[in-house]
Amino acid sequence: MRGTVLYAPRDIRVEERTKPTIQAPTDAIIRISAACVCGSDLWPYRGIEPIEGPTPMGHEYVGVVEEIGSDVRNIKVGDFVVGSFMASDNTCPICQAGYQSRCVHVEYVGAGGAQAEYLRVPLADGTLVATPGRPDEDLIPSLLAASDVLGTGWFGAVAAEAGSGKTVAVVGDGAVGLLAVLAARQLGAERIIAMRAKVKELTGGLGAHSVIEAAGPQESMMQAIRSTRPGGHVGYVGWAHGVELPGQELFYAEVHVLGGPAPVRRFLPELLGLIWNREIDPGRVFDLELPLDQAAEGYRAMDERRAIKSLLRP
Amino acid sequence: MRGTVLYAPRDIRVEERTKPTIQAPTDAIIRISAACVCGSDLWPYRGIEPIEGPTPMGHEYVGVVEEIGSDVRNIKVGDFVVGSFMASDNTCPICQAGYQSRCVHVEYVGAGGAQAEYLRVPLADGTLVATPGRPDEDLIPSLLAASDVLGTGWFGAVAAEAGSGKTVAVVGDGAVGLLAVLAARQLGAERIIAMRAKVKELTGGLGAHSVIEAAGPQESMMQAIRSTRPGGHVGYVGWAHGVELPGQELFYAEVHVLGGPAPVRRFLPELLGLIWNREIDPGRVFDLELPLDQAAEGYRAMDERRAIKSLLRP
Repeated sequence: MRGTVLYAPRDIRVEERTKPTIQAPTDAIIRISAACVCGSDLWPYRGIEPIEGPTPMGHEYVGVVEEIGSDVRNIKVGDFVVGSFMASDNTCPICQAGYQSRCVHVEYVGAGGAQAEYLRVPLADGTLVATPGRPDEDLIPSLLAASDVLGTGWFGAVAAEAGSGKTVAVVGDGAVGLLAVLAARQLGAERIIAMRAKVKELTGGLGAHSVIEAAGPQESMMQAIRSTRPGGHVGYVGWAHGVELPGQELFYAEVHVLGGPAPVRRFLPELLGLIWNREIDPGRVFDLELPLDQAAEGYRAMDERRAIKSLLRP
Repeated sequence: MRGTVLYAPRDIRVEERTKPTIQAPTDAIIRISAACVCGSDLWPYRGIEPIEGPTPMGHEYVGVVEEIGSDVRNIKVGDFVVGSFMASDNTCPICQAGYQSRCVHVEYVGAGGAQAEYLRVPLADGTLVATPGRPDEDLIPSLLAASDVLGTGWFGAVAAEAGSGKTVAVVGDGAVGLLAVLAARQLGAERIIAMRAKVKELTGGLGAHSVIEAAGPQESMMQAIRSTRPGGHVGYVGWAHGVELPGQELFYAEVHVLGGPAPVRRFLPELLGLIWNREIDPGRVFDLELPLDQAAEGYRAMDERRAIKSLLRP
């Protein structure tokens, strides 16, 4: 099969790879309908996150189930499915509490590389959610978004307790930030402030109730904390890189802080319903669509900020 | 009047000071029935927190209202009152959300020094809570505890979302930690683990639902974060001193974090009710009681760990 492999910084190739096979009875193999490039893929692409040898890339995917292991019960061959980038059993106490990205049996689905024709998904029953039927072609970008970028923006909004009557600020105007705005609106936020504005001024000196940090660097995290009112909530889903939080400032800020890898699986049933019923259209976040063989251009365009997010079709 | 003043590290004196007077129409003057020494008083006492000249000490107090300003409506002369160490108007949006320690008009009550015969309390209507009548003598230590150390342990337990069915761990075995245990029990926690135990082992590898950090140093904070299960809650009320939280570890820990100066005023009505009805007895935390004139021995005993917490009677 064809699949995307990173060899070295900015050396990304689409090449012939071994088609994945069932390795555990809880696995499924899916034929990828669409995959995409994540902001976090740019870390190794730019050489900021080192890689150990050639690395299959991609962890966001939708597709059709081609084969299942002998213990898979809920997912059937032929199902159109969306899954999280983290495999989860969806039954352990951590999953049951809604933190599937930290499942006691968690595995990184992207290890096999989703920017490819086929992908092995571990713990298929707990990880994948089937759509009610085969989706219309125009729904595929939105369903793909649910696999990570929408789920991550959504988690940011939920962690920040965005909701009715709340003023919500979003730090970061990348794909996650844009979908965090969508999420905050969907969750009923009264007012949403994009972070270029001076949040304290716009909130009578108090700060926002909810601030979603969707960028990652130190300055963004501190801006988020400083823009939140005492007792308010910061949801941070930017990949904290080299961040150190000063304990005393956090203490006196007196804000709730919750972040981490988004437990996308928690939100999938609800998000797929909203997309299926065309109540939200997160697929608009993809502003570049390419055949898989042109993955390198997809990375380059995001690296050079010519694209917000690239969708790849095998 | 007599009052406690810190002149230099370990040089604490009880001396004649000017009796406080009404300075704003929202002030009250109270005659102190009992005050005490806080763990945080030991920071300047030990010279770790510098002072600028002679500093009146103490911020925990109960007493009788002697005089009120012309705008005070809810508090009457003769009332027996308990107040937080932070004055709050109790009406601003931050107070209404339960974060009175970050009131937009917040003032530090301890500025005047509560280890004294009299104390000026700003924003008396929003800061002080009167008991239903003059308390029995044996209730005074518990009512005094509500002014800070109990309210702080309670906030830690609330911030950590200690509650029914939860496993709660407490880091720190000082007065705040002990009262956090009392709070967690009162809030219905199923199991409470004192932090000398290995929390992960005792919770099937998952970590506690709720962890209360009641100490302050870096190691305690990291121990608290590492002992909390993904999706669980850390409530930290130890005074974070020199703490730096590594962003990436916090990200992958995926725990809720909330701390800060306890909004004691939020809890006072409930706590006074529990004490008045003799449902809780937090006064047991005082293991040394001295006349005010022996305040120096109260500090020394805590500094040398001969006492957990010293109560002072003017």
